[in-house]
Amino acid sequence: MAAVMEDEVFKVFTTHATVVLVKLLLMGPLTAFYRFSRGAFANEEDVALKPAEERKKMLRTHPDVERVRRCHQNDLETVVPFVLVGLLYTLTGPELSSAQLCFRLFTGARLFHTVSYVVALPQPCRALSWMLGMGVNFFMAYRVLQTVLVL
Amino acid sequence: MAAVMEDEVFKVFTTHATVVLVKLLLMGPLTAFYRFSRGAFANEEDVALKPAEERKKMLRTHPDVERVRRCHQNDLETVVPFVLVGLLYTLTGPELSSAQLCFRLFTGARLFHTVSYVVALPQPCRALSWMLGMGVNFFMAYRVLQTVLVL
Amino acid sequence: MAAVMEDEVFKVFTTHATVVLVKLLLMGPLTAFYRFSRGAFANEEDVALKPAEERKKMLRTHPDVERVRRCHQNDLETVVPFVLVGLLYTLTGPELSSAQLCFRLFTGARLFHTVSYVVALPQPCRALSWMLGMGVNFFMAYRVLQTVLVL
Repeated sequence: MAAVMEDEVFKVFTTHATVVLVKLLLMGPLTAFYRFSRGAFANEEDVALKPAEERKKMLRTHPDVERVRRCHQNDLETVVPFVLVGLLYTLTGPELSSAQLCFRLFTGARLFHTVSYVVALPQPCRALSWMLGMGVNFFMAYRVLQTVLVL
Repeated sequence: MAAVMEDEVFKVFTTHATVVLVKLLLMGPLTAFYRFSRGAFANEEDVALKPAEERKKMLRTHPDVERVRRCHQNDLETVVPFVLVGLLYTLTGPELSSAQLCFRLFTGARLFHTVSYVVALPQPCRALSWMLGMGVNFFMAYRVLQTVLVL
Repeated sequence: MAAVMEDEVFKVFTTHATVVLVKLLLMGPLTAFYRFSRGAFANEEDVALKPAEERKKMLRTHPDVERVRRCHQNDLETVVPFVLVGLLYTLTGPELSSAQLCFRLFTGARLFHTVSYVVALPQPCRALSWMLGMGVNFFMAYRVLQTVLVL
């Protein structure tokens, strides 16, 4: 195993990064589930086996599918930068307690964000969980640049 | 060169990660090609040199452009997590043979997925290649959490 | 701090990667700002506090919001691969001067790209800055595969 994996902060980072990436990946099957259950597809080859008169009708958007896709997109915009900035932050050698707090807050915030989005909880559930995740990202980026700044 | 690059698994990972990232990046120029050949643009400044009566008509969506964009989006949702989870998986020190199998399956699956999507091969070509890629991602994430789980 | 952070190239990479990731993350709040100022929302729960007759009207797309979202999307397609390929490139041990040139060109190109996109500067401002960023990505990928190629 790589030497970096001996580091306690790196282990915590690896765990949280993998959890949020699995969560992001699960949005794919969830989209597929909504496409089938709502009968709303994007590609002609996906409905080729249906009777001809039904095909056109199934090539449409559906609010539930679009909602899951927006949640997926938000994950790409927030979770992927978290893993990248979090990796650099971990390599700058932060204290275990601060790093652990950052990672736990982010994972919690994003799990709650997904529920808020998919189930359409009333605002400000989604807004606050999004802001918390973004706040962790900006904080980690600030700490990285504070430690290492060579342009 | 960094010590981690001495590791055989890391070399294999680096090669496959770079190949699939180049493939992802090539979707950008491919979208541009389809936009020009189909005359379907998204921004007013992109059609500013055309005669005034043609401009409006060129600010539209075209099925071929949208197809390439969906393929690009699917790459963002699948290839980027592969590189991130794959990096963590590589650092946990897997056996060379298992890691190599994972990476090769993923690269092959995604190359075939792109062809299936852009050329619109009949299903289940695209579905199966997508599932194979996702399966590799979930397997690697499972192995990472099995080795390193510190919340 | 991890041993890899002692490396001068890694420090330069870390700085530039963090800067462009922060820039990518800022597109989120910018989208929110445009959604509020233009009154164009995507989710029903976001307009729940408005009077009933206004709600429907606010669930719409607006050209300014869509422009920022396209810019955000382009960042996901270009900046995320930059950080991933750039990390692998850095680990292959490039010369400091070449690496620094790559990273500076990319960061400069993407900052200019964002301005070009959001302010809608006349072409070819956006096209050239996009091409420069993509060129750096392809160059780094080429250098990685030239150094490490184990399929």
